[in-house]
Amino acid sequence: MKVLVLNGPNLQLLGLRKPEIYGRETLQDLCDRLVPVAEELDIVLECRQTNGEGQMVDWIGASAGMFDGLVINAAAYTHTSVAIRDANEAVGLPTVEVHISNIHAREEFRHTSLIAPVCLGQICGLGTSGYEWALRALARHLTA
Amino acid sequence: MKVLVLNGPNLQLLGLRKPEIYGRETLQDLCDRLVPVAEELDIVLECRQTNGEGQMVDWIGASAGMFDGLVINAAAYTHTSVAIRDANEAVGLPTVEVHISNIHAREEFRHTSLIAPVCLGQICGLGTSGYEWALRALARHLTA
Amino acid sequence: MKVLVLNGPNLQLLGLRKPEIYGRETLQDLCDRLVPVAEELDIVLECRQTNGEGQMVDWIGASAGMFDGLVINAAAYTHTSVAIRDANEAVGLPTVEVHISNIHAREEFRHTSLIAPVCLGQICGLGTSGYEWALRALARHLTA
Amino acid sequence: MKVLVLNGPNLQLLGLRKPEIYGRETLQDLCDRLVPVAEELDIVLECRQTNGEGQMVDWIGASAGMFDGLVINAAAYTHTSVAIRDANEAVGLPTVEVHISNIHAREEFRHTSLIAPVCLGQICGLGTSGYEWALRALARHLTA
Amino acid sequence: MKVLVLNGPNLQLLGLRKPEIYGRETLQDLCDRLVPVAEELDIVLECRQTNGEGQMVDWIGASAGMFDGLVINAAAYTHTSVAIRDANEAVGLPTVEVHISNIHAREEFRHTSLIAPVCLGQICGLGTSGYEWALRALARHLTA
Amino acid sequence: MKVLVLNGPNLQLLGLRKPEIYGRETLQDLCDRLVPVAEELDIVLECRQTNGEGQMVDWIGASAGMFDGLVINAAAYTHTSVAIRDANEAVGLPTVEVHISNIHAREEFRHTSLIAPVCLGQICGLGTSGYEWALRALARHLTA
Amino acid sequence: MKVLVLNGPNLQLLGLRKPEIYGRETLQDLCDRLVPVAEELDIVLECRQTNGEGQMVDWIGASAGMFDGLVINAAAYTHTSVAIRDANEAVGLPTVEVHISNIHAREEFRHTSLIAPVCLGQICGLGTSGYEWALRALARHLTA
Amino acid sequence: MKVLVLNGPNLQLLGLRKPEIYGRETLQDLCDRLVPVAEELDIVLECRQTNGEGQMVDWIGASAGMFDGLVINAAAYTHTSVAIRDANEAVGLPTVEVHISNIHAREEFRHTSLIAPVCLGQICGLGTSGYEWALRALARHLTA
Amino acid sequence: MKVLVLNGPNLQLLGLRKPEIYGRETLQDLCDRLVPVAEELDIVLECRQTNGEGQMVDWIGASAGMFDGLVINAAAYTHTSVAIRDANEAVGLPTVEVHISNIHAREEFRHTSLIAPVCLGQICGLGTSGYEWALRALARHLTA
Amino acid sequence: MKVLVLNGPNLQLLGLRKPEIYGRETLQDLCDRLVPVAEELDIVLECRQTNGEGQMVDWIGASAGMFDGLVINAAAYTHTSVAIRDANEAVGLPTVEVHISNIHAREEFRHTSLIAPVCLGQICGLGTSGYEWALRALARHLTA
Amino acid sequence: MKVLVLNGPNLQLLGLRKPEIYGRETLQDLCDRLVPVAEELDIVLECRQTNGEGQMVDWIGASAGMFDGLVINAAAYTHTSVAIRDANEAVGLPTVEVHISNIHAREEFRHTSLIAPVCLGQICGLGTSGYEWALRALARHLTA
Amino acid sequence: MKVLVLNGPNLQLLGLRKPEIYGRETLQDLCDRLVPVAEELDIVLECRQTNGEGQMVDWIGASAGMFDGLVINAAAYTHTSVAIRDANEAVGLPTVEVHISNIHAREEFRHTSLIAPVCLGQICGLGTSGYEWALRALARHLTA
Repeated sequence: MKVLVLNGPNLQLLGLRKPEIYGRETLQDLCDRLVPVAEELDIVLECRQTNGEGQMVDWIGASAGMFDGLVINAAAYTHTSVAIRDANEAVGLPTVEVHISNIHAREEFRHTSLIAPVCLGQICGLGTSGYEWALRALARHLTA
Repeated sequence: MKVLVLNGPNLQLLGLRKPEIYGRETLQDLCDRLVPVAEELDIVLECRQTNGEGQMVDWIGASAGMFDGLVINAAAYTHTSVAIRDANEAVGLPTVEVHISNIHAREEFRHTSLIAPVCLGQICGLGTSGYEWALRALARHLTA
Repeated sequence: MKVLVLNGPNLQLLGLRKPEIYGRETLQDLCDRLVPVAEELDIVLECRQTNGEGQMVDWIGASAGMFDGLVINAAAYTHTSVAIRDANEAVGLPTVEVHISNIHAREEFRHTSLIAPVCLGQICGLGTSGYEWALRALARHLTA
Repeated sequence: MKVLVLNGPNLQLLGLRKPEIYGRETLQDLCDRLVPVAEELDIVLECRQTNGEGQMVDWIGASAGMFDGLVINAAAYTHTSVAIRDANEAVGLPTVEVHISNIHAREEFRHTSLIAPVCLGQICGLGTSGYEWALRALARHLTA
Repeated sequence: MKVLVLNGPNLQLLGLRKPEIYGRETLQDLCDRLVPVAEELDIVLECRQTNGEGQMVDWIGASAGMFDGLVINAAAYTHTSVAIRDANEAVGLPTVEVHISNIHAREEFRHTSLIAPVCLGQICGLGTSGYEWALRALARHLTA
Repeated sequence: MKVLVLNGPNLQLLGLRKPEIYGRETLQDLCDRLVPVAEELDIVLECRQTNGEGQMVDWIGASAGMFDGLVINAAAYTHTSVAIRDANEAVGLPTVEVHISNIHAREEFRHTSLIAPVCLGQICGLGTSGYEWALRALARHLTA
Repeated sequence: MKVLVLNGPNLQLLGLRKPEIYGRETLQDLCDRLVPVAEELDIVLECRQTNGEGQMVDWIGASAGMFDGLVINAAAYTHTSVAIRDANEAVGLPTVEVHISNIHAREEFRHTSLIAPVCLGQICGLGTSGYEWALRALARHLTA
Repeated sequence: MKVLVLNGPNLQLLGLRKPEIYGRETLQDLCDRLVPVAEELDIVLECRQTNGEGQMVDWIGASAGMFDGLVINAAAYTHTSVAIRDANEAVGLPTVEVHISNIHAREEFRHTSLIAPVCLGQICGLGTSGYEWALRALARHLTA
Repeated sequence: MKVLVLNGPNLQLLGLRKPEIYGRETLQDLCDRLVPVAEELDIVLECRQTNGEGQMVDWIGASAGMFDGLVINAAAYTHTSVAIRDANEAVGLPTVEVHISNIHAREEFRHTSLIAPVCLGQICGLGTSGYEWALRALARHLTA
Repeated sequence: MKVLVLNGPNLQLLGLRKPEIYGRETLQDLCDRLVPVAEELDIVLECRQTNGEGQMVDWIGASAGMFDGLVINAAAYTHTSVAIRDANEAVGLPTVEVHISNIHAREEFRHTSLIAPVCLGQICGLGTSGYEWALRALARHLTA
Repeated sequence: MKVLVLNGPNLQLLGLRKPEIYGRETLQDLCDRLVPVAEELDIVLECRQTNGEGQMVDWIGASAGMFDGLVINAAAYTHTSVAIRDANEAVGLPTVEVHISNIHAREEFRHTSLIAPVCLGQICGLGTSGYEWALRALARHLTA
Repeated sequence: MKVLVLNGPNLQLLGLRKPEIYGRETLQDLCDRLVPVAEELDIVLECRQTNGEGQMVDWIGASAGMFDGLVINAAAYTHTSVAIRDANEAVGLPTVEVHISNIHAREEFRHTSLIAPVCLGQICGLGTSGYEWALRALARHLTA
């Protein structure tokens, strides 16, 4: 099983900025912490980050045939990007959406995800651990 | 650690009705399947179901001092109950909201959760496994 | 054929309060008046009333296998209860929604029924006779 | 007692088009099937259809003094015609609104009836039988 | 100067129905009462009524070159007809919109006129006298 | 008969500013032009202008017993002042609302009048002549 | 005079939870503090609390003939319960709505009360003293 | 303790106009009736009325240091005045908002108070007695 | 192949009125210009215009079995007619919607087409040439 | 060049109240600090403040011919006053709107300015320095 | 004549994914199929695709002087990109908007095009043939 | 002090396209004109432009530690980019938002800035001079 973990805009700042909302782990820490989980689950993991909506669309579009599932934290693009939604729907890979913070407890424009309707499900507010649960959920889904 | 798992209206029908959305497990199966996970995590688990909004409010109100955390699937009341939200906020226990189906992919009135803003986070669309991730997330939160 | 007639909040006051809107018949009168109609249609009738949303959900959830059809006047819960809608949809029994008054001629919040989309149809504004037409419609549907 | 049954736009296609929604009866069948019911109720029946909003307004405006009650299925005009509503309100005859399909289970713009607030009540979703219940309800109302 | 006075749906019932809103004058009375005013103003008057939206559009479309101005009481079509608005805008004749009742004091859907933005102005709530003021205003405008 | 003509904010600039919308007559010209009309109608006229919402409320509140009717052009306050509406409703004098320009053809926030629902009617878009038709309408109303 | 004081969901937690919003008095303290006021006003007082919407509807429905007036703090149900509103309207007893906190200064969904329109009036934000003013207002109303 | 009682637009007409809504007491009667209450509470009372929004803003702005609390019935300005809200918030005196009628039972635009969020609380629908409860509540607040 | 080209309200004025929006071709010119295109495509063409919504519904309803496809420019009815939409959906002929002007660049109420969702597609803003592309598209669709 | 600086409601409290939002400078300090800037720019400055909407309208209406430009901080009236907008538009002087605080970061009702569309531009959130930039911008505009 | 055909996000997947909506042609096939049409029309064609909003803005911004017209299928960016709209408006080249599927028959958020108002017109729902009609329309426009 | 001036989509066209809205200065002219101002203020200035949302997010994310403040004209992204807002909020540098045109006087979708709430303030409508005032405001803020 191969899984692509996609991180969207400003997540390169994780752990460096606003730790009271996103925690002190950096994105590298987060990815490193996922490695043993992936190994336990027999998953080959690839972790990427970009601030570009088009780059995310490129990567998702190219993931078909290369990966078996996706974990996506589209960050700000969650609420504004029809393009990422369309990419996700087009490739049709099972996807779990993750948000580190509880988006439903923040500004109203963060309550709506354009991407959630084309994913398996959504995990939010459980900190960087959410990526682990997403990975485990994806593994269980792919082996069901 | 003691955790109360609360299930709201119509979840007594789980596995018996509409399995294409909620799967074939019954609520009893679901609770049984959580037992070894709880044991692994050193959690004393209690699993309840009710169709009554008032009953849910009673149970949450009485959970302070009796439990260390809550897993709540308020089902239909998720979208209509200010009373459950207020109960949850009042007792202040760490809570993970769970939905078996992906509420963001169903009717628009199911996209909004009145309860999510007063929870740690929300897991939806990952089937009955969502309860397990919620339990694990709660355990990690309580021991952090 | 067995049919359950469910009456929601404040219908216990029927005939006792606001007769200019609901008529002077009591709920008991209404049920009694349905008996010969049910007999004519070879229907075994059961008539219940409750002010509790959870109780309505309980009864609907338990109606599968026990009844062949439902007549529901959810009264105020018509406009606010996703739980009753879900119960109805889950058990999947043919249901006719009845309202004694013309809900479309009253306050705007009474114009929308959360329950109607999961029923066969809706009858409103025809007084307590609406229950009779609902029963006849259900019988015709069940024997079609 | 004389009753005018008015059918609006596209109902001339009844039974010929989209039978999965409206059934296989033609409008003529429907009217024929109402005849014995009308006789049983001592009602002189007149059944008309038009695709013209203005024609419907003409007929309703001319019905005062000629008829004792109306059964109206305004079809698409239900949701857009203030003119039919005004005609109905102006002549003041007791009217029952009928829809063959359950308008509350279709597109959102079909959930609102501009005409319902000036009728006795509304019957929808009970197929072409709805006309019969409307006729019976009107007879009971007129002889009450 | 030639002026066409157009009356829309249900105005044929004027004086016969709901006199508490529209007064006891019939449409014929109203037109007769306008004759001496027209004569005083040197206006050749033509007074028409129809319940058909398409008929109104026909008449307005044909009025260019035949009339110098229009007085329109589109009644219910005021709030729903883009077609009449377009006809009016296309022929470009100076037009005064009239309503017998005060539309701003009735149901909210009567507060908006689709036609007003393409007229010189609007007179409402002044009873059938409104037609006279409209005629005088039109005369003054045409001779300015 | 005594009639008070009230003019609201910025109408002191009439004829001096933006003549393409309001014409070239000054407010004084307008009032002077009303004098012979008032005389013809046996009306004692008083013409006032203020930029103050409170001043308008004062004058309307004091008009009961002093005047038989009001002509009000509340200008910008038309769309924002509940206070003027309440004053008008409280004193209960027959009132005609006037606007020089066609408010329905301007910005959307000018389409709604808070004052219209408590007036006899509204005249707009007929230039400063609207005051004359308002006066004539008021006279006819008061002598009916 | 007999007055029923009804307290809705989560008010059993009063004084125990979130004292910064609701104060430190328990519900029992609150009721005890009302006793001498009731005695001064010659009122026989009964104080009840429930988390159940249906229970509130039951109690209000049964209050006719048993009580002369109601003081209701419906808490969360204030904003969601058409059933309690209908119960209140049906029994027709004079009612004063009370809220301990200033609901207009909290989340937007708390600004609207479905119950207020069928009460005499509303008191909010004056802490638990609001019950005393409500009782005094009710007494003055009943003896007026 | 010094308390300023501020009355907004049209309240000078109290008892003179629309007594079915506001009662037959004049504003002078109301103020006179508050005097013994104030004396009982050791409050020096000042009662003012104005129709001017700016005047209300002036008075509130100048009240800091001169008064210990405010009772404000802003009448129509309640629903439209950000300026009064800002004044109130700026001076920061404890304030109780009063409305004689039940604003929640009147037109929808009266249901929202721009001022309530910056007050201690709101009393409405209890007639002119509301001022007395406001005064008592303010006294209790100031001496708590 | 037989194709019916339907033109709605005010299109009889084409080329005669507002040429800056619709061009200088008359409707007859437009139809004449389509003839050689139809011949090239082996299409028997019929071109009709009406200002009547009911007439359009009649024609569409009667087109089944008589025509193989429709080109519809419903003009103003595009934005208001559920009846035409229903007719189109009922007969189920492949239809291309045409607008001469760019409806998305005009008033907001012209941006929504009730008819588009039941058509193959929509062409707008390309002038009277749009009819030609529609015909070609229909031919290609019918021969695919 | 003569410039009028207009300050709206509650700005007389500047520096005295809520300094965390508006700073500690008084309005007098602010005006004094503008004097050398005005001198540098060869501007004759006049600085006024009022709490009255009507007074602001009076001053703006009278500014034509007396001043070459305006700097307006309408404070609370920014969001509610069509009258000030109309005054500004009528006199047509180049105007810069200033707000001391960042209105876009405060309550949602402060995000919309009715006045901005008729000004050159808007400066907000830059503290009392905003007046200086406004003055400099106006000078540059007037001398361009 | 030189025409640039711009394709937006996910169109690189055309023919590879979701063929039931977009057909089986690849983007390369589509461009190849346009070549003979372009030759027939004497158009030099350039066909590009990108997933990047910024890249589309770059290309449109650079098209002035290089091309005579544009055909744009902005796909998902159609509904979210003000930047592309601004680019299009800025360069001012005649543009035809194309969508392969009927966007008006899909999710509501696809019904609105931010780009359409600054284009000549829009073609949607006619499959990949839409590009051909767009090219022909552009040629006719450029040679008119 | 180091300040980064960021320019968003289509600003590379400044002075080349639509000079009636944005003036005739090119972006290079604008930056050149800022140099002496920056020198006067002892600011090291860097001026960049991109059409890419992701590129803007990259630059802002990397600005922490490298710059002391930001001047941002996000152009079209102002109204659609949550990502830029999040970047700005994350790095926490004092920022002044600039718009060359008066966005409040253009289309309604340009009235809302997603970025303004996380900036010090906003300057709009003052042409390219707005950048200078922004720079001066930033300098004053940083040295305060």
